[in-house]
Amino acid sequence: MTPVIALHGGAGTILPERMTPEQEAAYHAALRACLKAGLDVLQQGGAAVDAVTAAVMALEDEPLFNAGRGAVFTSDATHEMDAAVMLGDTRACGAVAGICGPRHPILAARAVMERTEHVLLTGAGAATFLAGADLEMMPPDWFGTPARRAALEAELERRRLNLPDDGDPARKHGTVGAVACDGEGHLAAATSTGGMTAKLPGRVGDSPVIGAGTWADDETAAISATGHGEYFIRWAAGHEIDARMRWAGQDLVRAAGDVVSELGARGGSGGLIAVDRQGNVTLPFNSPGMYRAWSDGEGRIHTRIFRD
Amino acid sequence: MTPVIALHGGAGTILPERMTPEQEAAYHAALRACLKAGLDVLQQGGAAVDAVTAAVMALEDEPLFNAGRGAVFTSDATHEMDAAVMLGDTRACGAVAGICGPRHPILAARAVMERTEHVLLTGAGAATFLAGADLEMMPPDWFGTPARRAALEAELERRRLNLPDDGDPARKHGTVGAVACDGEGHLAAATSTGGMTAKLPGRVGDSPVIGAGTWADDETAAISATGHGEYFIRWAAGHEIDARMRWAGQDLVRAAGDVVSELGARGGSGGLIAVDRQGNVTLPFNSPGMYRAWSDGEGRIHTRIFRD
Repeated sequence: MTPVIALHGGAGTILPERMTPEQEAAYHAALRACLKAGLDVLQQGGAAVDAVTAAVMALEDEPLFNAGRGAVFTSDATHEMDAAVMLGDTRACGAVAGICGPRHPILAARAVMERTEHVLLTGAGAATFLAGADLEMMPPDWFGTPARRAALEAELERRRLNLPDDGDPARKHGTVGAVACDGEGHLAAATSTGGMTAKLPGRVGDSPVIGAGTWADDETAAISATGHGEYFIRWAAGHEIDARMRWAGQDLVRAAGDVVSELGARGGSGGLIAVDRQGNVTLPFNSPGMYRAWSDGEGRIHTRIFRD
Repeated sequence: MTPVIALHGGAGTILPERMTPEQEAAYHAALRACLKAGLDVLQQGGAAVDAVTAAVMALEDEPLFNAGRGAVFTSDATHEMDAAVMLGDTRACGAVAGICGPRHPILAARAVMERTEHVLLTGAGAATFLAGADLEMMPPDWFGTPARRAALEAELERRRLNLPDDGDPARKHGTVGAVACDGEGHLAAATSTGGMTAKLPGRVGDSPVIGAGTWADDETAAISATGHGEYFIRWAAGHEIDARMRWAGQDLVRAAGDVVSELGARGGSGGLIAVDRQGNVTLPFNSPGMYRAWSDGEGRIHTRIFRD
């Protein structure tokens, strides 16, 4: 079978009316380059986990997206990054929450998966482990960008003036992720995020919560979500899709689409990407847009930002 | 209908052959007293969430159990406590991970649920929030006990001498939790733990992971798990029971029993307690024992440690 990969750069897109043509072109180019980084791995016969890792590393390096370099600031003007990775064949998984140091947080999640007996490491304890994990480390000011700093200042000013939330999803839903099905029919999912601009330090969203923002099982699907994380946790979004496929016999497109619609109806804006072992890909979202890209059965790359 | 409540004090029981009659009597008395604390709330017409909170607070205060006072030590001889609470009617939930300060970590989880927009707060960020949350705080040395200190020293000595793990589940599976169905048919679940003796600082198990160690939905079940947390996360144990009831039409006893059996077959030792809105209660485990107690339809209290 032809291996496939899909990625997202977050459901928190710039609102269509605020997006310039130059910005839009830059996003499409970045999505294509990051997808290609993962697709290259698959086309060389690589495993799904290596493909999603490569795609997420590229997304983390791209300052347009809220993960790695370009991560948003907390209310304390720090960075706290979360990431997770999961394999569909064994359900092996690893996750980190509240870290700042590794250039590629997704490699920190892989290190937890591959070098510890644990699934989730957080904060100072995670930092101690990661310092000895032979990862490329960066100083805190490497992660921030002027645009992210401006977004923090605007949000703190809004709160000071007690102005209403402008509803701009770009502030809330920045996450990156990738899912893939390799030539052997194995699935993998990876998710990485800087969280929400001006979030309370210590807040952990759905990205590193296995079963919520990240999930993979070869029998059902690999899933990476982006959106209002608290809703995705309460609805165990990733595992709920697995459950509908496994126990209700639904197909990938219906299960994923229904979960995203139901989340939207309850106020949980966002979206997700999902792939099954037949190579079906779906990328539903209930927000104005979702940065996304995927490869088709002929290995062609497609990129989208808003609704078709 | 008659409200019901069940609790566990962890699947990591002392091995039967090492338990003295005096210890066994002390555990039964403690289980009964903690169950009564929750049952009293229900019998006075209280809500399920208040009943499970009362039961878990009593379990946290009881040094025999690994939560609150009596929490085990990390490898750094510190305490890092995790807790979560979830309501079945709204799926509101709150959780904390890696905290040391509040006398009752379950109240910290409730504060996250009731006073923030978030679900999960961790580490230093959580500590900052909790310092302003008007909770009773205790110094770190209040939580430890001579028995927990001895367990840490024995485990560190075992590692120094590179001796094999003695397989004693008491070292690994200490957790407390409660589930209840109140007179209005609403469900709630609460879980609290000190983690594993000599755990890597920063390690988070299944207790505060919504969908893994803690779950509640009025349509299906309220669940609190105890055991080898990494397995319970990989199998999304709590939400998997929900899924089998919701999508496969299984009843509570079968769904919960099968999940615990399947976890055991894969090496995931432990157990869980679960209740549905009809007031059915089940307390399956695949380990040598599980400290547990429950009320029946006549309001009588039952306590058990090993298999019947």
